[in-house]
Amino acid sequence: MTTAIATAAGTRPWPGLIQAYRPHLPVSERTPIVTLHEGNTPLVPAPGLSRCIDPAGRVQVLLKFDGANPTGSFKDRGMTMAMSKALEEGKRAVVCASTGNTSASAAAYAARAGMQCVVLIPKGNIALGKLSQAMLYGAEVFEVEGNFDDCLRLVVEMGESLPVEIVNSINPYRIQGQKTAAFEIIDQLGGEPPDFQFMPVGNAGNITAYWLGYSEAAADGRVSRRPVMCGFQAAGANPIVRGAPVEKPETIATAIRIGNPASWKQAVAARDESGGIIEDVTDEEILEQYKWTARTEGLIAEPASLAGVAGLVKVAKRGFFEARLSGRSPSHPLRIVCILTGHGLKDPERAIKCATAPTTVPADLKEVAKRLRLG
Amino acid sequence: MTTAIATAAGTRPWPGLIQAYRPHLPVSERTPIVTLHEGNTPLVPAPGLSRCIDPAGRVQVLLKFDGANPTGSFKDRGMTMAMSKALEEGKRAVVCASTGNTSASAAAYAARAGMQCVVLIPKGNIALGKLSQAMLYGAEVFEVEGNFDDCLRLVVEMGESLPVEIVNSINPYRIQGQKTAAFEIIDQLGGEPPDFQFMPVGNAGNITAYWLGYSEAAADGRVSRRPVMCGFQAAGANPIVRGAPVEKPETIATAIRIGNPASWKQAVAARDESGGIIEDVTDEEILEQYKWTARTEGLIAEPASLAGVAGLVKVAKRGFFEARLSGRSPSHPLRIVCILTGHGLKDPERAIKCATAPTTVPADLKEVAKRLRLG
Repeated sequence: MTTAIATAAGTRPWPGLIQAYRPHLPVSERTPIVTLHEGNTPLVPAPGLSRCIDPAGRVQVLLKFDGANPTGSFKDRGMTMAMSKALEEGKRAVVCASTGNTSASAAAYAARAGMQCVVLIPKGNIALGKLSQAMLYGAEVFEVEGNFDDCLRLVVEMGESLPVEIVNSINPYRIQGQKTAAFEIIDQLGGEPPDFQFMPVGNAGNITAYWLGYSEAAADGRVSRRPVMCGFQAAGANPIVRGAPVEKPETIATAIRIGNPASWKQAVAARDESGGIIEDVTDEEILEQYKWTARTEGLIAEPASLAGVAGLVKVAKRGFFEARLSGRSPSHPLRIVCILTGHGLKDPERAIKCATAPTTVPADLKEVAKRLRLG
Repeated sequence: MTTAIATAAGTRPWPGLIQAYRPHLPVSERTPIVTLHEGNTPLVPAPGLSRCIDPAGRVQVLLKFDGANPTGSFKDRGMTMAMSKALEEGKRAVVCASTGNTSASAAAYAARAGMQCVVLIPKGNIALGKLSQAMLYGAEVFEVEGNFDDCLRLVVEMGESLPVEIVNSINPYRIQGQKTAAFEIIDQLGGEPPDFQFMPVGNAGNITAYWLGYSEAAADGRVSRRPVMCGFQAAGANPIVRGAPVEKPETIATAIRIGNPASWKQAVAARDESGGIIEDVTDEEILEQYKWTARTEGLIAEPASLAGVAGLVKVAKRGFFEARLSGRSPSHPLRIVCILTGHGLKDPERAIKCATAPTTVPADLKEVAKRLRLG
C-alpha cells in the first residue's frame, strides 16, 4: 500500500502553503506573501509501527513529519499566514511570549518580512539553548521584570496600542495556516482522509486546526468523511483529561507542557464531533516511542511529537482497534496518521541523554567482525 | 520573478528521490527502495542577498535548502541509493567512519532498512553531541584503538571480507543519489538550469554529483546548457585552492574540514568544464554569512553551508558578475543558486555562541515601546 507515485515531470515546485491552498485561506491579491516554502512535508509510511499495531497487516500507520518545515516545527504553517497578514495590515513588529517553537518560527518569518520580532520572557532562568534559534534569526529577547502573566499582559497591551502584531496563539490566522496540514494529508493519501489521526495536545491549537481543515474539506465535498481525532497530553500536563487546569504542568515534552490550553473547548469539540478520544501518556511512554521510532522508522522528532505515537501504541494494546478491523485487509488497511510536530534536532540534549556508550574495539578485523550481527 | 506556481491539485505527493527520478538512477524492479521521502527540498528566493549582489535587481539568488531533508543534510540523497543497493545485494550491515552528517544519515536509513549500522571512530576525544543523532537512530559506535587511518583501513577490510556495505564516500551510489539535487533545481526553475551555482567544497562529492546531474540533463536534452560551478573551501582547509593536501585542516565549518578530498579530481573537472572557480573563504566570512542569512532570509544552515554564500558575496564585491550583467534586467535576471547543505539545528552550540544577550525591561508598556523600532 503506497500513496500515488509522482514522476518528476508531474511534480510542480512547491511555492509554500498559502500559494498552494490560496482559495481556502483568508488572503487576497493585496496580501504580500511571506513564505519560506513551508508545508509539503513528507507523509512517511511506518511499517514497523504498522506491524506493531496489527501483525496481520490490516493497519497502515503513516507519520506526517512536520519537523521538515523550515524552522523545524509545524508552527511555520501558522506563521506564514500570521506574518503575511501582519504585513498586509501595516504592522512594523511582531511580539510573542514563548521560549520554544513559536518564537523560533516568529523570528524566522519576521526576518523574511523585514519586521522586528520581540520575544518576551520572564527575567531569570533563561535557557539560552532554547532561545538561541530565535535569536539567530534576529529576534530581540526582552527579559521582563515580572512573571509569565506579566509577559502575556504586555503582549496584549502592545497589540492594542502599538503597530505591533501579536503572534501568540490568540492570533487567529495561525489556525488558518495550520489547517493546511489536513489538506496535505488528504492530497498525499490520494484524495482520502485517514481513518484515524493521532497527535499530541498541548495548547490544543494544532488539533483544532486539523479538525477545521478536515471539516472544511468535507463541507466542500473534497472528502466524504473525517478522521477520528485522538489527542494525547502528557500525564503531568493533562488538563483536558482531568477536566481542570494544571497549575504546575511538568513533562519532559516541553512543547506540550501546558496547564491551561488556549484552544481547550475546540479540542474537546474535535474529539466529540469525530467520536475520538483525548487521553494522556507518561513521560516514560513518550521517551520509549521517541527511541523506538528513531530506531525502527528512521525518524527523530522532538519528544512532544511522540505523545501521539505513544497514545496509539497504548490504545492498540487495550484492543481499541479490534472492532474496527473487520473487513480490513493488507490491500484495504485501516489508515492511521500520526503527527510528528517538530524535528528531533530541536532537542539535542535529549538525544545525548538517550545515547548509549560506544564500544571500544581493537583495530583488528576479526575483533570487529565478532561484534557484528550478521546472522 | 518567481518559479512556476503549483496548485494543490497539480502537486502529487513526493515519494522520495529514487521513485521521482527512477529512469535516471541505477535501480531496477528488484531494488527494494529504502526511503524517508528525502529530496524535494525548497528552492527559496533570497531577495536580501539578490539586492546585495546587484541593487539594480538584475540578479536573482535562490537558496536550495537541503537541510530540510529527513536527517537534516544533503547526505540523505546519497544514502537512500546506497542503502537500497546494499539491501538489494543482500548486505546485513553498513559501516562508515564519520562523526557527522554521514553517520547520522547512514544510521537513519539503516534503521529504515532493518540493517545494523556501525560507525567507527578513533578512541578518545568523542564529541557525543555530534554522534548522538546517529546513536539515537540505533547506530553502534565502535571506538577503535587507533587513529582515523586505522578506522578507514578497517572499513575497507570489512567491505572486502564481510557482508557489510561501506557507506563512506567511496560508495559509488551516493553520488548517483546526490545528483538528483541538480534535477530538482532544473524542475524548480521551470526546466532551466541556473546561470551560476555556488556551494561549499569539502570532500568534494557534492560538487561532483551536481556536475554529473547537470551534465546528464544536458546530455539528455532536458536542458541546453549547464551552470558555471563555483566551489568554496574554508581557508584553513583549502587543499584544492593550494594544490596540495592540508595535513591539519582547521575550520569552524566542520562539515568541510577535509585536508585531502576524495573527489578532488572530479571537483577540478567540474570547475574547468563549467568555466567556474574553486576558491576559499575565511571562518570570519562564513560566520558573517551564517548570521546575515538567518537574519535577512530567515533560514539557518550549518556553518559549512554558508561557504558558498560567503564566496558569492566575496566575488561579487570584486566585480565577478559585472561583465555578465549586460542584457540582464529584473524581468530576465541572472540566476544564481546557492546550496545550503545542512540544517542550522545540526550545530546548536554555534547558534548559542552567536546569540546576543537579552535586554532587561520593566513590566511596563511605555518602557517596552521605547525599545521598539517602529519608525
